[in-house]
Amino acid sequence: MAGLEDLRRAIGEIPLVDHHVHGVLVRDLPRWEFEEALTESDRPVPAWTTRFDSQLGFAVLRHCAPVLGLDPHPEPDAYLARRAELGAEETGRRLLAAAGVGRFLVETGYRADELLGPSGMSALTGRPADEIVRLEAVAERVAAEGVGAAAFAAAFEAALWERSRTARGLKTVAAYRCGLDFDPAPPSPGEVTAAAGRWLRRVERTGGTRLDDPVLVRHLIWTGVGRGLPLQFHTGYGDPDLDLRRADPLLLRGFVELAEPRGIPLLLLHCYPFHRGAGFLAQAYPHVFFDVGLGVHHTGARAAAVVAESLELAPFAKILFSSDACGPAELHHLGALLWRRAMTRVLGGFVTEGEWSAEQAVRVATMIGAENARRVYGLGDGGSDGAGDGPDGGAA
Amino acid sequence: MAGLEDLRRAIGEIPLVDHHVHGVLVRDLPRWEFEEALTESDRPVPAWTTRFDSQLGFAVLRHCAPVLGLDPHPEPDAYLARRAELGAEETGRRLLAAAGVGRFLVETGYRADELLGPSGMSALTGRPADEIVRLEAVAERVAAEGVGAAAFAAAFEAALWERSRTARGLKTVAAYRCGLDFDPAPPSPGEVTAAAGRWLRRVERTGGTRLDDPVLVRHLIWTGVGRGLPLQFHTGYGDPDLDLRRADPLLLRGFVELAEPRGIPLLLLHCYPFHRGAGFLAQAYPHVFFDVGLGVHHTGARAAAVVAESLELAPFAKILFSSDACGPAELHHLGALLWRRAMTRVLGGFVTEGEWSAEQAVRVATMIGAENARRVYGLGDGGSDGAGDGPDGGAA
Amino acid sequence: MAGLEDLRRAIGEIPLVDHHVHGVLVRDLPRWEFEEALTESDRPVPAWTTRFDSQLGFAVLRHCAPVLGLDPHPEPDAYLARRAELGAEETGRRLLAAAGVGRFLVETGYRADELLGPSGMSALTGRPADEIVRLEAVAERVAAEGVGAAAFAAAFEAALWERSRTARGLKTVAAYRCGLDFDPAPPSPGEVTAAAGRWLRRVERTGGTRLDDPVLVRHLIWTGVGRGLPLQFHTGYGDPDLDLRRADPLLLRGFVELAEPRGIPLLLLHCYPFHRGAGFLAQAYPHVFFDVGLGVHHTGARAAAVVAESLELAPFAKILFSSDACGPAELHHLGALLWRRAMTRVLGGFVTEGEWSAEQAVRVATMIGAENARRVYGLGDGGSDGAGDGPDGGAA
Repeated sequence: MAGLEDLRRAIGEIPLVDHHVHGVLVRDLPRWEFEEALTESDRPVPAWTTRFDSQLGFAVLRHCAPVLGLDPHPEPDAYLARRAELGAEETGRRLLAAAGVGRFLVETGYRADELLGPSGMSALTGRPADEIVRLEAVAERVAAEGVGAAAFAAAFEAALWERSRTARGLKTVAAYRCGLDFDPAPPSPGEVTAAAGRWLRRVERTGGTRLDDPVLVRHLIWTGVGRGLPLQFHTGYGDPDLDLRRADPLLLRGFVELAEPRGIPLLLLHCYPFHRGAGFLAQAYPHVFFDVGLGVHHTGARAAAVVAESLELAPFAKILFSSDACGPAELHHLGALLWRRAMTRVLGGFVTEGEWSAEQAVRVATMIGAENARRVYGLGDGGSDGAGDGPDGGAA
Repeated sequence: MAGLEDLRRAIGEIPLVDHHVHGVLVRDLPRWEFEEALTESDRPVPAWTTRFDSQLGFAVLRHCAPVLGLDPHPEPDAYLARRAELGAEETGRRLLAAAGVGRFLVETGYRADELLGPSGMSALTGRPADEIVRLEAVAERVAAEGVGAAAFAAAFEAALWERSRTARGLKTVAAYRCGLDFDPAPPSPGEVTAAAGRWLRRVERTGGTRLDDPVLVRHLIWTGVGRGLPLQFHTGYGDPDLDLRRADPLLLRGFVELAEPRGIPLLLLHCYPFHRGAGFLAQAYPHVFFDVGLGVHHTGARAAAVVAESLELAPFAKILFSSDACGPAELHHLGALLWRRAMTRVLGGFVTEGEWSAEQAVRVATMIGAENARRVYGLGDGGSDGAGDGPDGGAA
Repeated sequence: MAGLEDLRRAIGEIPLVDHHVHGVLVRDLPRWEFEEALTESDRPVPAWTTRFDSQLGFAVLRHCAPVLGLDPHPEPDAYLARRAELGAEETGRRLLAAAGVGRFLVETGYRADELLGPSGMSALTGRPADEIVRLEAVAERVAAEGVGAAAFAAAFEAALWERSRTARGLKTVAAYRCGLDFDPAPPSPGEVTAAAGRWLRRVERTGGTRLDDPVLVRHLIWTGVGRGLPLQFHTGYGDPDLDLRRADPLLLRGFVELAEPRGIPLLLLHCYPFHRGAGFLAQAYPHVFFDVGLGVHHTGARAAAVVAESLELAPFAKILFSSDACGPAELHHLGALLWRRAMTRVLGGFVTEGEWSAEQAVRVATMIGAENARRVYGLGDGGSDGAGDGPDGGAA
């Protein structure tokens, strides 16, 4: 069917806005370190297995190998040898160019010392890259620099305003720190000071700044709401630091309703395996958006199934694309490539089965891949033709 | 494959029993009001989007347009212009006739002042329509008409018996009012009187009759059990008034077991995205039945996936068809049409893959589409040939 | 595509290791008793239906009938007549031979008086069969034989060591007895003695030995951890004795982390409909493994969907095959056959869609079907060619 080939091409040319991504790690990686990037587990790889034996590992060998000039499905050692031969920077440049992402919103609160930041991502790709600021990282920096409990709230607010001057959005990892079943109401100033006192004493005593007190997490979130930028929530699947049951986005209902009058977009990230619940929230509440990033490249050959499930209850204007890639550029490549393949397969199926027109399919893919993010984050006019905003947003 | 075409035709001719539906709204609708009917959200449509940009919206344009004489996939304005030209009544008549529903069980406890009741549905379609009585609506009417706390239980019982004289079943919206995690045991008379007192004082003070006290909701349900009619539960997805986590049908386990000796059928409605759990309950307990209504038309091109997931653990005699359509006749049409398309695709797949015979597929579709409801609600003999019960049950 | 036929053949020849199965019931069965084996419900079959009207029932008629010399899709009575004609033993021999299972790990803690044990399974099939010991059954036997509260812990430990001398693994049904939301830490000796006292007094008073005290269940599990064998957990779907919400494997997170330093494999059985969460645990924790047994034969024509969902987050070395068959040999046959058909369909799809190579598909199927279990349970060297370990492990 010619229409499907057209659809494949049109989806292939969308200048994606990756609205939640981490930087590329531009450094040659020994095999063990590359393998550790292929999983959310923080445990060492057991001797009796390899992390290449996973959907993500197979996808690297299938889809990244040709970008580096190899046939699909090489042995892992052959792949890594070729990667080393090209060097991490050339590998990254090739994989990113082939991904065709038109714009990056880079979350900088994780491994900021070794991953590329927005300017580095922009230099590597020739595409604009803006910042998403992680609330907890700002607060932990405030603590590391020294502050008293009574001054914490003001110091955090000042630091957040300063750090987010040019940012496009904020992000919270409450799901990791206290679970999404937190009390949705803002804590009182007295509660915040008391909680800050407990936390800062622990920071002083142990040297570790990790912020996981639920009162403080809530305070960060509500301060973030006051900042007025779109607010991203990690939800669903992640590393074992997280109790997956407490990362169900449906737990955010109380907060979603309390925040609704403030008028800022709330973006539920990843969501797997709770993406159907996220679709419900996106239908029910005008300010709720979601994506199935992370799950797309981690499920590899099953990505189309996950993407299909995200296209049920949610209005099409409420679904976004993200990769949540972090580290090796393979993840950035696969986040985009597997999303395009999945959308082509799923929307192509709708067209073949006589449910959608091909025009509708292209329009919805463009909304999800780029336009919705442009509107939510105010990234330019993003016309419905899928063209980028200005000289830097064209398709790869 | 000829067999699949036969299967499509056979499923197309089943005189469906829509065992949970609301009335048609026979009134011309401005665009904003039509759009609001395309979502479970009770929020206004944001200016930057249209509710036509959803699976349900696309399904209206694809499948309802031809019934009104348009090509598939018109622009929304063209669709609504044609709808206005025909008028709401002719539109409703055409869409309902093409749906081929043989019998309606109409839930009358929601917007009863503006939606057609059973007699109106029967007049519009030429098919029999019976009533499902909503417990909470009966109790709220008792409160509105004035009653003392001590007399409430008796007054409610009398009103329920009177209102349900010819009804086929009862319905509870406990999921909206207190969540399905209610204490499963019947409350004591003293508890009921005390709770009624609190509620009736609030009714008097505020004028609002909404009943959401868990003690009273439990009392209504157990009084409903005593009435001896099949009892429907809203479960799963609905409007934002509902905490979806507390609408998981698995939460009803305690009640299901306490009610089992009473021998009345319990019908879990909608269930999305918890329909697999509902399938487990339907396998485990002889008196539990379920459907995936509402989710079928709201997921549009994905309806086959939802229907397929409902065909896993549940015995085929325990699954029913419903649309849960409410308002514009497009929803009634799509509830039936998309279910037929989904069943054809899913069961046709089972046949093509060599798992089922074509005869089994037709038989199971007929059970789910009509016969199971006939048996549960006592609607006539409903032979296995799928013929209707008497002159009014033939295929459309 | 020739490759798919090769894949089908290769998957068909894997000498499966069924790492969690119950024995065959070698006795002629009246229709009602055969039907009761087709469901997890413990309720009688209602007069208005038959348990053949289910995915499992249809699968019996489709796939077992030809093994007994009938055409596919006979009427249930014709099937049962042929079964009676052959006799239970010949029926069992044929169905098991056609299943091609190379090795059985037989859980012996349920209906041990009437189901074949490991030696009986081995005699019927000519394949090796080892034992999985159910912790609760060992403790209940200790109670039945008489023991004081203070001596219980030592008596249970001695009995467990004795009973498991040649066992390959242990199993707990905590999901049935107290839910998986148990306190993950080992109870203190004082708590154990007190709980044993309460339980043993009840045993004496009522004659029933059922152990469902959460303190004792935890004690059994931690004693089992001390035994050092792989430990199986029932999770997900089962009979109505179980609150499905409390059988979510994600509830085990605390226990999984506490047990991690002990280095024994934890095997999450069945998991449906929570298998995606189990896949997360298998990715996150090196010692967590899972399967989707039971759900495969109970979902019949939908087994491929369930198997596909198990192939998302989990590394391929962490997924196992089991049937959880129990009683009629039809279940043992279908557990293996439907898994092979599902894997062929799912992995064949990955190959056809250009995501996996055919070689990868065969290798992963062999890992899941046999090699992973060989490694976890130490069953022999299990080379990647899929050959059995020694003269008794060849393909059927």
